Amino acid sequence: MKNKPDDLISILEQKETFYPFMRSGKCRFGVPNTAELNEFMELIKAILFPGYFSRQTIEADTFGNYLKVNLLNMQTILTSIIHKGYCFDCENDEKSCAHTVTESAGMSERFIETLPLIKELLISDIEATFLGDPASKSHGEVILCYPVIQAMIHYRVAHQLYKSGVPIVPRMITEMAHSLTGIDIHPGAEIGKNFTIDHGTGVVIGETCVIGNNVKLYQGVTLGAKSFPLDDNGNPIKGIARHPIVGNNVIIYANATILGRIRIGENAVIGGNTWVTRDVPANEKVLL
Amino acid sequence: MKNKPDDLISILEQKETFYPFMRSGKCRFGVPNTAELNEFMELIKAILFPGYFSRQTIEADTFGNYLKVNLLNMQTILTSIIHKGYCFDCENDEKSCAHTVTESAGMSERFIETLPLIKELLISDIEATFLGDPASKSHGEVILCYPVIQAMIHYRVAHQLYKSGVPIVPRMITEMAHSLTGIDIHPGAEIGKNFTIDHGTGVVIGETCVIGNNVKLYQGVTLGAKSFPLDDNGNPIKGIARHPIVGNNVIIYANATILGRIRIGENAVIGGNTWVTRDVPANEKVLL
Amino acid sequence: MKNKPDDLISILEQKETFYPFMRSGKCRFGVPNTAELNEFMELIKAILFPGYFSRQTIEADTFGNYLKVNLLNMQTILTSIIHKGYCFDCENDEKSCAHTVTESAGMSERFIETLPLIKELLISDIEATFLGDPASKSHGEVILCYPVIQAMIHYRVAHQLYKSGVPIVPRMITEMAHSLTGIDIHPGAEIGKNFTIDHGTGVVIGETCVIGNNVKLYQGVTLGAKSFPLDDNGNPIKGIARHPIVGNNVIIYANATILGRIRIGENAVIGGNTWVTRDVPANEKVLL
Repeated sequence: MKNKPDDLISILEQKETFYPFMRSGKCRFGVPNTAELNEFMELIKAILFPGYFSRQTIEADTFGNYLKVNLLNMQTILTSIIHKGYCFDCENDEKSCAHTVTESAGMSERFIETLPLIKELLISDIEATFLGDPASKSHGEVILCYPVIQAMIHYRVAHQLYKSGVPIVPRMITEMAHSLTGIDIHPGAEIGKNFTIDHGTGVVIGETCVIGNNVKLYQGVTLGAKSFPLDDNGNPIKGIARHPIVGNNVIIYANATILGRIRIGENAVIGGNTWVTRDVPANEKVLL
Repeated sequence: MKNKPDDLISILEQKETFYPFMRSGKCRFGVPNTAELNEFMELIKAILFPGYFSRQTIEADTFGNYLKVNLLNMQTILTSIIHKGYCFDCENDEKSCAHTVTESAGMSERFIETLPLIKELLISDIEATFLGDPASKSHGEVILCYPVIQAMIHYRVAHQLYKSGVPIVPRMITEMAHSLTGIDIHPGAEIGKNFTIDHGTGVVIGETCVIGNNVKLYQGVTLGAKSFPLDDNGNPIKGIARHPIVGNNVIIYANATILGRIRIGENAVIGGNTWVTRDVPANEKVLL
Repeated sequence: MKNKPDDLISILEQKETFYPFMRSGKCRFGVPNTAELNEFMELIKAILFPGYFSRQTIEADTFGNYLKVNLLNMQTILTSIIHKGYCFDCENDEKSCAHTVTESAGMSERFIETLPLIKELLISDIEATFLGDPASKSHGEVILCYPVIQAMIHYRVAHQLYKSGVPIVPRMITEMAHSLTGIDIHPGAEIGKNFTIDHGTGVVIGETCVIGNNVKLYQGVTLGAKSFPLDDNGNPIKGIARHPIVGNNVIIYANATILGRIRIGENAVIGGNTWVTRDVPANEKVLL
């Protein structure tokens, strides 16, 4: 390249001088990356659903070792991911990074203790999915083929990391599932047991949603924000509760849009293509 | 890890004792896996659309050999995939697995005989897509870029395997396309020739749909079930015809939702955002 | 395989005799392929957002070299991709291919000169996304996690290649993003600065759309064609302006469908689930 590209480089360099469109790697640990996150999620799936998603052979008499080896690998990778997440966040605040590898290792260990809970919830989601779909042939088919199960594995893992305060990583994990399935669940949402989504493409579940037990959604359902209070500069104020609260046993049909901090009462049925921005009493049906 | 993780492992082990959340590999062939299915679909695409999706060089005088080599590779992989599919299903029913590699090889060979039909149908879909979209520049662009063509290659292959009774594999193949394109077609659906979908994200075509020739869908269209008869335990009865029958030359615009075992007559036009749960006579227009 | 497969091969061979369902590689450069396009887009992201998407270490004193090396690699790959794009198109027209590697290298060099503009526009999109979403925690999170940013990086790069007349490649680049994000933007669309899409799955932006500055879309919005004039054979005429013109500061809520060469005036607000096929005056609100 001749002089012109040199000018170009100096332009691109100049543009880099303004934060935050470059990561300089102050912390020397880099940014959480897709390859590492994929490896982490593959180990999670190998541990929670042995024999489904990895080619490792499972034997009754070596199963304890299989779990132990995969748990150890997973813990090591998660420690690295969490530490990068903290570095990412520190640099963002332009503070010095006080989080240490030891601290990240501790969080990784505490995450592992939530695995039995995560598994229990996922098994309830699989059961709800199997029972709810006349097309499903077996629990095995549901685990192996249904997008909602991929979305829920990612969400339930991300939600535990979110609750323990790990920055950036939970959102990256749910966005991986969003890309794979078209199901967009914010890791901050709270979702009860026996949850299922049929088909799934286009579903949006916002950050401050609270969803009860035995809830079923269809494709294209939005549980979103209606409007947000603005600050003095006219920008949305962050972190305010602004998404729906959905009671137990609610069914929401395809492409319904439910917006704002409203309550959908227990056993309510929300019809397809509806636009709902007010409370819905328990046991009520909302149709187009 | 200290004692605590040992407790954790024993909890995860215990949870594994209840079927079907673990695959023990009784059959010793493992579960159909993504890597093998990807390789199979790449060979299918290399055979049906030479020179488009693989980097193999195509020459007029070696083209017969090119086809033969790719067909042989594909047959070998498909035999392995089919056998794993049968093992998956047998274990599921807790019966002993009576299917042999020889039997799977026979099914693989019979599948290959359907390739000319699959290719003929796909060429009709490409033609319909090219003619139906003012933005398309060439047939080549349609093959290389249009999501509907990826979805239809996967569906038309999966449908042949579904008809011959291969378990689990057909659904895995259409879900691969669902993840890539946002188009969710159940392998059990029946779809005529000259079929096309514009854009595609969010389209759902259910298991018992029957679609005629020259049908065009737009993004977000659902051909789904309205409600399903329940068994004595309150769970949906499997396998009942519950999705629409769509006649020849029907056009269905964006985000229309069509539910239940209804008939959409020939030449009907269904407008966007509509919600249709009753028969539509031939030649009729349904608008919002 | 026995005689039967030989028959099969001859059938598949015969089918290949009719153009254009086979690429014979007349030009000897092959078809633009996914692997090369992925590498190109990774280098683009490494250059525009250093430290985010690649694992290369960034240091202040070597940053100029980092940019130079990545730019050179990117230029080489892009030259190869552009040349394949021309070959693809020539073969399509059955003309001899007059485009040379030198010519492709020139186009690649001219593309690189548009990078500062592309970066400036993307930074405005990141700013709009950060400010517009109460759930966003930092600009860094927006760059790393938000699907709209992936979609816009692909679109803004593809649009520059589209304007300079490179065949097939621009559409391949936006379809890569469509597959990843569910956001389908045609590379021919014109989109102003400070553009954002929340969630994104199901969004369609057609080839001849013209979108102003500070426009915000939500998931499932279609900016599409209403109907197209047909030629004497009853097929759509290619290339006619048929998609909406959207003014500055317009907001369009979830699943709105806006069709035809209509004008949405400045500051207009289009409500969710609406179906709009007529001009909307400036400052007006269209609700369901």
